[in-house]
Amino acid sequence: MVGGGQLARMTHQAAIALGQSLHVLATSHDDPAALVSPNITIGQHTDLDALTSFGAGCDVLTFDHEHVPGEHLHALVSKGIKVRPGPDALLHAQDKLVMRSKLDALGLPVPRYAPVESVEDVLEFGAWPCVLKAARGGYDGRGVWMLNGPDSAKELVPRLLEWGTPLLVEERVAMRRELAALVARSPFGQGGVWPVVETVQSNGICVEVLAPAPDMTEADAEVAQELALRIAAELDVVGVLAVELFDTEAGLVINELAMRPHNSGHWTIEGARTSQFEQHLRAVLDYPLGATDVMAPAVVMANVLGASHAPEMSPDERLHHLLARFRDAHVHYYGKQERPGRKIGHVTMLGATMADVRERAKLAAHWLSHAEWLDGYDIHGS
Amino acid sequence: MVGGGQLARMTHQAAIALGQSLHVLATSHDDPAALVSPNITIGQHTDLDALTSFGAGCDVLTFDHEHVPGEHLHALVSKGIKVRPGPDALLHAQDKLVMRSKLDALGLPVPRYAPVESVEDVLEFGAWPCVLKAARGGYDGRGVWMLNGPDSAKELVPRLLEWGTPLLVEERVAMRRELAALVARSPFGQGGVWPVVETVQSNGICVEVLAPAPDMTEADAEVAQELALRIAAELDVVGVLAVELFDTEAGLVINELAMRPHNSGHWTIEGARTSQFEQHLRAVLDYPLGATDVMAPAVVMANVLGASHAPEMSPDERLHHLLARFRDAHVHYYGKQERPGRKIGHVTMLGATMADVRERAKLAAHWLSHAEWLDGYDIHGS
Repeated sequence: MVGGGQLARMTHQAAIALGQSLHVLATSHDDPAALVSPNITIGQHTDLDALTSFGAGCDVLTFDHEHVPGEHLHALVSKGIKVRPGPDALLHAQDKLVMRSKLDALGLPVPRYAPVESVEDVLEFGAWPCVLKAARGGYDGRGVWMLNGPDSAKELVPRLLEWGTPLLVEERVAMRRELAALVARSPFGQGGVWPVVETVQSNGICVEVLAPAPDMTEADAEVAQELALRIAAELDVVGVLAVELFDTEAGLVINELAMRPHNSGHWTIEGARTSQFEQHLRAVLDYPLGATDVMAPAVVMANVLGASHAPEMSPDERLHHLLARFRDAHVHYYGKQERPGRKIGHVTMLGATMADVRERAKLAAHWLSHAEWLDGYDIHGS
Repeated sequence: MVGGGQLARMTHQAAIALGQSLHVLATSHDDPAALVSPNITIGQHTDLDALTSFGAGCDVLTFDHEHVPGEHLHALVSKGIKVRPGPDALLHAQDKLVMRSKLDALGLPVPRYAPVESVEDVLEFGAWPCVLKAARGGYDGRGVWMLNGPDSAKELVPRLLEWGTPLLVEERVAMRRELAALVARSPFGQGGVWPVVETVQSNGICVEVLAPAPDMTEADAEVAQELALRIAAELDVVGVLAVELFDTEAGLVINELAMRPHNSGHWTIEGARTSQFEQHLRAVLDYPLGATDVMAPAVVMANVLGASHAPEMSPDERLHHLLARFRDAHVHYYGKQERPGRKIGHVTMLGATMADVRERAKLAAHWLSHAEWLDGYDIHGS
């Protein structure tokens, strides 16, 4: 796996059960995965030599993030290294313009959008407020700017273009909530789908995932699942595909794609028969996929974010107190140094009713985050 | 953790979630845990210098097996190393004579037994058939001999005494089945109990664990659980304690103790809210213990044993076929070389009824074992 973050760390846990050990190309021995796997190569994902020698020692090369340059991916394939998902699929998770254009051509529901090569492109787009996005490199709310009118466009767009950022502009979708449809696909074409989830964001960062998405009919869920399976097949994705969706009055609209285990699927570790991490491995290694049914009527995952000031208690001390309060909390710490707002772990709760499970998961994550990042975020329901 | 076997391997998986990484004293880089953890020290558990320098780098020292000599454990404690469970507790899992004598003195139900220092001790014991046991070092049916009468005693006992094996003799308990009560205890004295399970043996090796034990009243289960909690408290155990029990007409009789994660608890990884591996870590690290409720009405764990002849398919190929047949099988491979009868993994199934789950778990383990070790073991129910 290229990249040594928490996704690689949790994938290693899943690999152990399959009798494997995950080899990781990490940037540092302090990366979350490098702390827990013995098979670590230190190198940059932008360095083709490092990628080549790393990939040559692996059965299959897969990814913890989307940041490996496409030309490097093609070079690896030409050297006979199995890259899964392949470069042509992965491009749609790397470049939002390519993704929008492809999905649009397939007749799939995407927001109205336009490429931006000058401030005039934004002014011609003509919808206010609108959303300006970096086509590449953004995540967790970075690379996304809200434009309220022509003045803000004139101020921001030239600066971004000057830095060389490829841009697109999109309508601001009036949505009721955000959803995510998570699927996996094998090289053979077998598909596996988990229940559709609702994702709750705060300041552009996912703070909660509710599984299954509350108040969603089975028919609506199937629409989302079939959409995700179709995208996986059309783009020839191998591995896990997360399709982030806007739930609108007019139906579902596709927001983003990710072709790797995704924050919206962390709940599957305890909440589903097969976790997204094991499923991703099974897909890229071409094992048959596992069952995806849920282990409880309601499952909530809440992210633990680093405290925004010097905390009185270490994350480990906070964990002690939490485990005394909630005997059934499933906590995952990523071994990261605490920094304000940084995802340092997550907590998952399972139970009989969404309201109860959500309240407890929020309280748990709030306690572990030990900080004001949840200020203004009503922990007693939204 | 001293010892790099599959118990350490699965404990490392649990440690990752807690933000930790398990340090392992292994005998080889090919040990199951050494293949998946970066924090490996190679050394012998009988080497006090190796134990001391390893222990000095750990917050707490705990064990994957019972084979560290007691005098070494005391030496480590005297150097200020936290050893959990402590040497005085662990002695009862190391020496069956000490264990029998202690439990007998506590008024707990043990088989009638006697120490053996000569063949006359066995002849005086006078019950035929009886069971001769090595007081130390036996496992998985090794170190246990059935004596049918005086002749077999006269033949075997002098030979064993000549080799210096400390021995005891026990009545052969007429039992209906074997059970195991698994508990955990923290340094503070907090206890956690999982449901009592039935363990099914073949040739002295555990082949199946049924959770919860079928046809057991809640009252009977509580008797077993309270027995295990009392032993944990009386012996001052810290960590997981497995109490192997004979289920007899006259009630429960204690067979063996283990003070570490135990084969009878592998089902807890997917089958219980908190696995025995996480619970063991929580206990020895003095975190509050986790909830132990079950995730399904019936859970069955079946061991995968190495094939008894050169198999046509590798364990990995067998896994591919298995996952195609059983989408809900939870497979754990230990990364061990296959040898006839060797525990190389296990498979766990969850479901609504014990009969169905058991049949599927047996079929799965039988397939993965790919061999005759189950000959004579009726896979369609016993």
